[in-house]
Amino acid sequence: MAEKKKNRNRSVDPAVLEVLAETEGKYSSDTAYDRFLNMQPQCSYGDTGICCTICIQGPCRITKKASKGICGAHPYTIVARNLVRHALGGCAAHADHGLHASLLAREVSEGHAPDYTITDTKKLYALADMFDIPREGRDNRDILKDIVAIALEDFNRLDGQDSKWLPKVILPERIEKFKECDILPSSIHGTIADAMAQTHAGMDADPVNLVFKALKVALADYIGEHIATSLSDVLFGTPKPVVSEANMGVLDPDYVNIAVHGHNPILSEMIVKAARDMKGEAEKLGAKGIKCMGICCTGNEILMRQGVPILTNFSSQELAIMTGAVDAMVVDIQCIMPGIQAVSECFHTRVITTMPSVKIPGAYHVDFDDARAMEKAREVIEIALGAYKERSKEKINIPNVKNKVVAGFSLEALLDVFAAVNPDNPVQVLTDALLSGELRGVCLLAGCNNLKRVHDENHLVIAQELAKNNVLLVATGCAAQAYAKAGLLNADAVDKYAGDGLKAFMNRLNEANKDRLNEKLPLVFHMGSCVDNSRAYDLMTAMAKELQVDTPKVPYAASAPEAMSEKAIAIGSWAVALGMPVHVGVVPPLPGSPLVDGIALQIAHDVYGGYFIWETDPFESAKKILAALDERNWKLRVHRQAAEKYETTLSKTW
Amino acid sequence: MAEKKKNRNRSVDPAVLEVLAETEGKYSSDTAYDRFLNMQPQCSYGDTGICCTICIQGPCRITKKASKGICGAHPYTIVARNLVRHALGGCAAHADHGLHASLLAREVSEGHAPDYTITDTKKLYALADMFDIPREGRDNRDILKDIVAIALEDFNRLDGQDSKWLPKVILPERIEKFKECDILPSSIHGTIADAMAQTHAGMDADPVNLVFKALKVALADYIGEHIATSLSDVLFGTPKPVVSEANMGVLDPDYVNIAVHGHNPILSEMIVKAARDMKGEAEKLGAKGIKCMGICCTGNEILMRQGVPILTNFSSQELAIMTGAVDAMVVDIQCIMPGIQAVSECFHTRVITTMPSVKIPGAYHVDFDDARAMEKAREVIEIALGAYKERSKEKINIPNVKNKVVAGFSLEALLDVFAAVNPDNPVQVLTDALLSGELRGVCLLAGCNNLKRVHDENHLVIAQELAKNNVLLVATGCAAQAYAKAGLLNADAVDKYAGDGLKAFMNRLNEANKDRLNEKLPLVFHMGSCVDNSRAYDLMTAMAKELQVDTPKVPYAASAPEAMSEKAIAIGSWAVALGMPVHVGVVPPLPGSPLVDGIALQIAHDVYGGYFIWETDPFESAKKILAALDERNWKLRVHRQAAEKYETTLSKTW
Repeated sequence: MAEKKKNRNRSVDPAVLEVLAETEGKYSSDTAYDRFLNMQPQCSYGDTGICCTICIQGPCRITKKASKGICGAHPYTIVARNLVRHALGGCAAHADHGLHASLLAREVSEGHAPDYTITDTKKLYALADMFDIPREGRDNRDILKDIVAIALEDFNRLDGQDSKWLPKVILPERIEKFKECDILPSSIHGTIADAMAQTHAGMDADPVNLVFKALKVALADYIGEHIATSLSDVLFGTPKPVVSEANMGVLDPDYVNIAVHGHNPILSEMIVKAARDMKGEAEKLGAKGIKCMGICCTGNEILMRQGVPILTNFSSQELAIMTGAVDAMVVDIQCIMPGIQAVSECFHTRVITTMPSVKIPGAYHVDFDDARAMEKAREVIEIALGAYKERSKEKINIPNVKNKVVAGFSLEALLDVFAAVNPDNPVQVLTDALLSGELRGVCLLAGCNNLKRVHDENHLVIAQELAKNNVLLVATGCAAQAYAKAGLLNADAVDKYAGDGLKAFMNRLNEANKDRLNEKLPLVFHMGSCVDNSRAYDLMTAMAKELQVDTPKVPYAASAPEAMSEKAIAIGSWAVALGMPVHVGVVPPLPGSPLVDGIALQIAHDVYGGYFIWETDPFESAKKILAALDERNWKLRVHRQAAEKYETTLSKTW
Repeated sequence: MAEKKKNRNRSVDPAVLEVLAETEGKYSSDTAYDRFLNMQPQCSYGDTGICCTICIQGPCRITKKASKGICGAHPYTIVARNLVRHALGGCAAHADHGLHASLLAREVSEGHAPDYTITDTKKLYALADMFDIPREGRDNRDILKDIVAIALEDFNRLDGQDSKWLPKVILPERIEKFKECDILPSSIHGTIADAMAQTHAGMDADPVNLVFKALKVALADYIGEHIATSLSDVLFGTPKPVVSEANMGVLDPDYVNIAVHGHNPILSEMIVKAARDMKGEAEKLGAKGIKCMGICCTGNEILMRQGVPILTNFSSQELAIMTGAVDAMVVDIQCIMPGIQAVSECFHTRVITTMPSVKIPGAYHVDFDDARAMEKAREVIEIALGAYKERSKEKINIPNVKNKVVAGFSLEALLDVFAAVNPDNPVQVLTDALLSGELRGVCLLAGCNNLKRVHDENHLVIAQELAKNNVLLVATGCAAQAYAKAGLLNADAVDKYAGDGLKAFMNRLNEANKDRLNEKLPLVFHMGSCVDNSRAYDLMTAMAKELQVDTPKVPYAASAPEAMSEKAIAIGSWAVALGMPVHVGVVPPLPGSPLVDGIALQIAHDVYGGYFIWETDPFESAKKILAALDERNWKLRVHRQAAEKYETTLSKTW
């Protein structure tokens, strides 16, 4: 019982705390909050990266008695090898996502996926122009076909030529840097296979060579993400400001409630559409209709484009079911806790898997098919309707917690907001605020939940501290959902948390946009899902161009306050290679090798300008992020002043 | 000191024991034999597969207190996910190897790699015919180009079509089976990326789905291996019987000794050629010449094709350096212990890495380049000559242990041996011997060294026991090298170990070949390197065709007495899917999930006809392999008799 109570301190989300309290002792199934406690103490070898299971002569753990693996691998080799494999797990996940988007786009371009269409021609044309694809007098589908061909070639190229996508979306200075270090990927799949081979037993023992490979994998990850975002925008529309709400209070006992969970808008967009179409069938069952809501990044995708509310984020996905009000949890790919199935057994909730590579024993499985998307989506809804009939009112306990959300800030949408102030050069609104000192920098708040920290606490404290200190905040992923749930994605939060400079900046934006937007702007700009971290980096690139410097000179940092997945490792790594200071609120498995840890924390800075900061305390984290921003801001201003004074040109490169 | 003595019991190779005894206490550097002891006890969670480090919310270990991972993953999910990742490490390693062979073949076909050529036109034409590539009146290079195009497409296909290579080299019944279970790969790189994504956190939780994916990965591995073997044969020649010798006694103090270590004949073939060319330069230094010798599979490659002697196998690679007589150890890819560098520091030996994905801090690096192969090989030899000048005679201690080796048994060579008895239908010589009861079956002895067993002991005991019981033996990899070193790859071993049936069979072959071969045949037929396990399976396929049954009905087993690497996991898995009973002498990390373990040991049999046998005791292992062969042999004969008696046809399929 003492343990249970301890459990109850592991979130700052009041909805989570309420569900945990209400269900205590009622159901046999446990949750991630319980399992985290049961797992303590966690293995310190694995935790610091010095456990090697790459061959079955192992496992080898580095101890005082055993200073090297059986094969003679130093701790630096073991740690670096594990790092590469983590990064490539993330890269493969995003590649899977980006490839699915590409293949669907190809189907659409060939007219083989009738339920999907080209929604955003503006984005289509922007991509076409980026790749010098002619579009005068051509059918949009033919233009899309040409874009997809470039994307697919970036997946499977074998001729050793450079990626075509990456050089179009990042600064040439970065590309030069990557060529110097031989980390510019040729293809995504080729890089994954190559990195996996390089980490096989008896392959690379050189930690520096391995770390460079991890960065190459991370850049391949970036390509996959950028493709996923770009083509999703073409197919489903580039997000625009939208109002919605978040947290478990969005569950409505009068509706059939369908939680859409995972990462892939290809499924969730269709579920949302089918749910609207099938309202009548729900009404026949006595419900007022069908309400969709999202968990994790597929939730972000449909929030951004359809205004669908956020139910909760990663750590609390099981608890959504424990409200008793979720009729179906439809999952696609990534971050699906297997634990949801066990919890659902205690309720009427149907867990429905939909992808061939994600199945859960005991769950329903609908084999989603792009070519018969609406038919399959309807099949999913039918299952939810069946469950609704079995719903037990006594088990329903919906926390009365929800907050207003203003989201939908794709880079295009954000620049549009700035354009109200300066239509000729929107991004200058931001860079001028930095140069004037009104803002101290920009910070991307990203990444997962990780119960090694108190659920959402790091997310919230760091954001509040940075806002107080006049940092403009953009967010993605489960981080953005933490802000959504806690009410930081609306204008009230500006009043509550923003420092004077940030307030002044926001007021200027609000004033200029008052006839263009129905809502005042939020404290944190929600840029989308985890693959949409590419949007956040596109913003950094736009700022760098405006400031006429390479990205490492831009006062722009990233923070993953609760990094958990391999995707986060891949994202953090490309963010460093692309020039960001990257704070991580959970120490990843590197400290077992001071050498590899030192590369991440220091040497990366010398080579790429970006570097990692491990800091678990949220207040300290905010301080370190601010210091990183201040350093860049100071340098940027001093260098510009010096250049002006002595009539020299500012060095662009890192 | 007591510990050291214990250490000395961890090999049955007298050369190894001698080097360990002679060097005891003399050098500060330790060896794998010492490090294995230091590593005891090894972590039982990792050892049984129930440690998950796939996300950094972990590590999670399954204990009585924690029956699931923090995410709710059951032990079966954790074990199956780790299995997939192991298999795909192996698949990626072989893909890397096969892709390098393919890309070199393309260079050759385009005239861009002047130091390489098409050596074996017979193999070239056989491959062309297999793929219905026209060859009348065409240049050989154009034919090769067409074959390479098919191979490369099997690496990077994205259209979801089936592999083109696999259906040409295995039975249609197997292909049908794989299609039924959806494990027929489309492409190698696509499968690797897909499987990596499927094992990301929050993806697949279904152990059955995961195990099927492991098998798909394993079949992709098979394609990579088969391509590697086939194209290596085209470029360097299909092996023919060759006489050589093995074990550390092949080191000659009067010569510059160069150990070639790794897996890739693209490097080692060129080193051997350069060493022959540069004899004069060695003589100028007072040496009688340059002697090359091999470790691991690149050693097998040049033994099979060039008659280059075997120095030692995986576990004892460091000890080769400790003889003081190795001037350079040139390494390419895979199974290179990082420990060789530390040992080399105590001697004059130069460790020379050559591939971009394999570096060792402190080692020399020559960036091998296919387009400038001979120039690079000469660079390597120059380093060895420089080292020779620094050789310290006092440190030289070469064990006087070596054995005669008769190797070179590609499938083509083996069938040629049988053709002396039956020119019209060579493989019938073998199948008739099985049907008559003269032989009890065929066993492929394959795989690595693993110090969890006494070095080479399982290899030797199992082979001797099977030979005694009239099993025809073929071998590859470090297993074949164990037999080479111990004198089992020559005719004396037939006299010593073969049972009466096997003796009679061998005598018949020897008698028929007495005018065709200069040497009597060995007890164990060395079929090549680890990728050449494809040759051994081609033999099984040929037998199945002759017997008019699917492969699971052929009395043919495989054993990996000391499996160690991820490649072994991939190989064992395809061997099972392709219909072999597969003994493994080291228990892989599956028993943590009785469900997954049961799939490997039993359910696989129901689906594919092949299955695993874990058994660490070599005598028990031999008994279990014999039982597996006897069962098949009995069934095969009874079914044939019944078919004959009742004039029905024999069911071909499993």
